[in-house]
Amino acid sequence: MALIVQKYGGTSVGSIDRIKSVAKRVIDTYKQGNQMVVVLSAMAGQTDGLIELAKKVTQDPDPRELDVLLSTGEQVSVALFAMAIKSMGYDARSLLGFQVGIHTDKLYGKARIHQIDTKRIKEELEKGRIVAVAGFQGLDEDGNITTLGRGGSDTTAVALAAALNADICEIYTDVDGIYTTDPNICPEARKLDVISYDEMLEMASLGAKVLEIRAVEFAKKFNVKLHVRSSFKEEGGTMVVPETKDMEKVVVSGVTYNKNEARVTIKRVPDKPGIAAKIFKPLFDAGIVVDMIIQNTSEDGYTDMTFTVPKPDFKKSIQLVEKVAKEIGAEKVLGDENIAKVSIVGVGMRTHAGVAQKMFETLAQEGINILMISTSEIKISCVVEEKYTELAVRVLHRAFGLDKNQ
Amino acid sequence: MALIVQKYGGTSVGSIDRIKSVAKRVIDTYKQGNQMVVVLSAMAGQTDGLIELAKKVTQDPDPRELDVLLSTGEQVSVALFAMAIKSMGYDARSLLGFQVGIHTDKLYGKARIHQIDTKRIKEELEKGRIVAVAGFQGLDEDGNITTLGRGGSDTTAVALAAALNADICEIYTDVDGIYTTDPNICPEARKLDVISYDEMLEMASLGAKVLEIRAVEFAKKFNVKLHVRSSFKEEGGTMVVPETKDMEKVVVSGVTYNKNEARVTIKRVPDKPGIAAKIFKPLFDAGIVVDMIIQNTSEDGYTDMTFTVPKPDFKKSIQLVEKVAKEIGAEKVLGDENIAKVSIVGVGMRTHAGVAQKMFETLAQEGINILMISTSEIKISCVVEEKYTELAVRVLHRAFGLDKNQ
Repeated sequence: MALIVQKYGGTSVGSIDRIKSVAKRVIDTYKQGNQMVVVLSAMAGQTDGLIELAKKVTQDPDPRELDVLLSTGEQVSVALFAMAIKSMGYDARSLLGFQVGIHTDKLYGKARIHQIDTKRIKEELEKGRIVAVAGFQGLDEDGNITTLGRGGSDTTAVALAAALNADICEIYTDVDGIYTTDPNICPEARKLDVISYDEMLEMASLGAKVLEIRAVEFAKKFNVKLHVRSSFKEEGGTMVVPETKDMEKVVVSGVTYNKNEARVTIKRVPDKPGIAAKIFKPLFDAGIVVDMIIQNTSEDGYTDMTFTVPKPDFKKSIQLVEKVAKEIGAEKVLGDENIAKVSIVGVGMRTHAGVAQKMFETLAQEGINILMISTSEIKISCVVEEKYTELAVRVLHRAFGLDKNQ
Repeated sequence: MALIVQKYGGTSVGSIDRIKSVAKRVIDTYKQGNQMVVVLSAMAGQTDGLIELAKKVTQDPDPRELDVLLSTGEQVSVALFAMAIKSMGYDARSLLGFQVGIHTDKLYGKARIHQIDTKRIKEELEKGRIVAVAGFQGLDEDGNITTLGRGGSDTTAVALAAALNADICEIYTDVDGIYTTDPNICPEARKLDVISYDEMLEMASLGAKVLEIRAVEFAKKFNVKLHVRSSFKEEGGTMVVPETKDMEKVVVSGVTYNKNEARVTIKRVPDKPGIAAKIFKPLFDAGIVVDMIIQNTSEDGYTDMTFTVPKPDFKKSIQLVEKVAKEIGAEKVLGDENIAKVSIVGVGMRTHAGVAQKMFETLAQEGINILMISTSEIKISCVVEEKYTELAVRVLHRAFGLDKNQ
């Protein structure tokens, strides 16, 4: 008998029919002798609908009350799901954040889980019940409702799996696993059977939006085995697990890209201590998230500073930086919205030499100019002209052998 | 400084604009130096929509889970309302059943309030906050969500007013008070300035659907002053208060009617002990609520038994009673769906003679035949042919001087 935590996203419970088929699926696994804890998101579109409603009241809704409002979405899902299970002749109980005891900090809209009580859930499981837990929600120390932010149900599921010491945490979604790259632009993309937490973290943050980053961090921290799979298909998906020696044999696990950033360059910045802090302070104050930052070696006391920002913040960023540029005596500010970031990810990079070299050569062979480079232990990212994105992804995918079963 | 509990029904919070105008109204009263606790229903249509959703899952939804589902309606209302208050520059907090501590029994869908904690609400009030409480919901001793049944928000408001020892409980609705009769069929109907709990109970149970009966019972038990008034008008409505000597001067306070019942008669029932119990057992077992029951004096060992049932249960009732009639050797069963019950209500009846006589004469003068009569201390009801309903209401209204200011 295993204890299984399953999480179903908004699309998987997007209609009454889908809720019923999720219920059937859960019952099947239950009948095989497993204890089942099922975490549900709000039905697709619900959360956006509630946010719209709040925006009609005020453009700037009170964060505490917004969480009270949004948490109803998951409450509806778990109630309907538990009804479905019961109507099929099995016993189920829905539990909300306050009923489980999902304790968080007080950061409305992006709360972090501190601790989860397991008593109530264990009691229900011991009675042979299927337990449906509302995802995305918790309770602060004063008994106020909090929510965990977008994708928070993933975090709920992983945190529950950790607290309950579950055998596995299955994340059901509308894709059937993690791919070596986006199949929409590279038909040769293959589903990965297994991936390490760190690779998953790099893949997620780079745009492969299957799993919430925080959930992966949580899983890594508490060693929770994740299985990302489709709610619409029977076959297995991708296991996200601790890194093994074996994994290092594969140099590159995936190729990702991100077209949602723009590039800002400040030319001939007087190279003095504290200059970077001065440049980025107004951006930070405006809540603009700066991603890659590159500073060239100083020549004759001047340096160039280049960084990327989200495209929607591009114009605002240019304005802010032009003001700073004048103050610090830089020459001028340049900007480019037509860029994309292409990255290769793999734990094997740690032990294999020449990976960067191979990436640069592959791009060069296709005449793709590299505008910026940044590297981490298990990732190399190149910024290129946006029009080359798809081509870059395809040639890198092939160059690192991702089109072949390894 | 007074402590005021206000309750706004589904129509009063039926749109974002209405929620905003309720918020303005509450702030106005708050600015006059009052402490405000505001109980809200679900937005009009919400609860029905949620029930429909549940019915799509299963025709017979689990009662516990149905309550989890339905309680989201009020949760949405209080969150939006608190947002509205805050966006207008005043401080507010929404509190759900579990946050207040509204403790009920375990009867899902029709739970009764056992006890209310006042600590959290008092803390919020002391901080100068307007407190918005989700109506209709509570928590059983095991921490499960319960709901109080239709009109339950009235009960929440009155119970809160009692627990907090509030100065007044104002029930805001889409009518502007309690009328002497239905203005739709009697244009001379007048709004009552004041009415006693007992009169209100009789009026409510007889079809003047303004206040939930249980809420009035609660108010009577705990001596909570009620004020029933319109959310769309400024002027005062009707005060529902303990009976005073003064009230007895008015013989009749209102005329009500009910067209939703049908009549069943069993002719020549052998008059033996236990016969009534035998007749009504199958109806009781089938969950059919029998209203008026009249048994004529026995003649030669046989009696006639007449009673009324809700119209939707009429056919079923006839079937059940025909079976029993055979068993007990009664002659036959008659039925009539085209009846109506017309009643006069007033605490003054206790001390005034001849009220019934006047009612019967008034109806006779118009050629209206009385089919059944039943009386209580402060109410006389006559069953008449349905087609005479409006006429009967109008002539009684005039005969007892309800068209004149008293």
